[in-house]
Amino acid sequence: MKAEDYKILNSEYLFNRPWLTVRKDRLQLPSGQVNEEYYVLEYPDWINVVAITKEGLFVMEQQYRHGLGQVGIEICAGVIEKGETPLQAAQRELLEETGYSGGTWSEEMVLCANPSTTNNLSHSFLAVGVEKTAGQHLDRTEVIEPILMTADQVRELLVNDKVKQALMAAPLWKYFSTHGLL
Amino acid sequence: MKAEDYKILNSEYLFNRPWLTVRKDRLQLPSGQVNEEYYVLEYPDWINVVAITKEGLFVMEQQYRHGLGQVGIEICAGVIEKGETPLQAAQRELLEETGYSGGTWSEEMVLCANPSTTNNLSHSFLAVGVEKTAGQHLDRTEVIEPILMTADQVRELLVNDKVKQALMAAPLWKYFSTHGLL
Repeated sequence: MKAEDYKILNSEYLFNRPWLTVRKDRLQLPSGQVNEEYYVLEYPDWINVVAITKEGLFVMEQQYRHGLGQVGIEICAGVIEKGETPLQAAQRELLEETGYSGGTWSEEMVLCANPSTTNNLSHSFLAVGVEKTAGQHLDRTEVIEPILMTADQVRELLVNDKVKQALMAAPLWKYFSTHGLL
Repeated sequence: MKAEDYKILNSEYLFNRPWLTVRKDRLQLPSGQVNEEYYVLEYPDWINVVAITKEGLFVMEQQYRHGLGQVGIEICAGVIEKGETPLQAAQRELLEETGYSGGTWSEEMVLCANPSTTNNLSHSFLAVGVEKTAGQHLDRTEVIEPILMTADQVRELLVNDKVKQALMAAPLWKYFSTHGLL
């Protein structure tokens, strides 16, 4: 099976707004059959951060998420701006959303929310030894409440599916399992 | 922070097709400020399945995913049809996409692709001891190649981020970590 055997016969943008870009492709399959409406949601790449303070506490965020209509506990996440590396975006977002910075950073994994419907990747970072160095600097419509939690508290959230976003649950499962914390 | 403090002032459907439903809300924040365009992608709930044969092999799938434009290795996944329970949908999808059925089923986790932009949940099942009992029954535009893999092969994919879809990576990380396979 090869990606090259799938051919875009026609492509048009149905919608192009800062928070929603919808492309509609006519896609020819290897068999010659045509999928007349294949929708792709285009986004810039994203980042998120498993951030742990010098004291060993996890920097989590409480935030209302309107898709599910629920307040949830998350890790810091955001969009990579033009000209930024994934690491720069992750460090900027953590500072803006929580006021934490510094520490030792590494890229933990690169996943995708949905390879069939979205065209972007999400880079997950691990930041160990961060410190509070500033206040929050949020966008106009952002409401984010940073919360420090122990590893036990985060594990409890994780095993009970309370970290609902799969792009955040996966790096937390990886971190907890590879650090003997389960 | 409470979900009830966020109020939908106005809601309209911009797009309503079988594979893409876009809702646009005007959302009032607790501060009284209004987010004039909050887009929610509406989907039915989804399922996926970590399926393991009687011989201990993982039932994986090779499939082209047009969002990323890549052929990837995945676990079985699909949509819950009207009137189905998540378990019924998972068993139907595994049978249709791979021809495997039977075994012992349990719900491993319930996540969301993106709680801020999507309104649906994804139920992950674990099916242990499945057997090949039928051929594939695919939809007209589906091209899926089932592949049996050892735990070592799947772990190799997982730790190298080759299972790109976060909704599939998370239950695999959970399975491998809680079964001492990492």
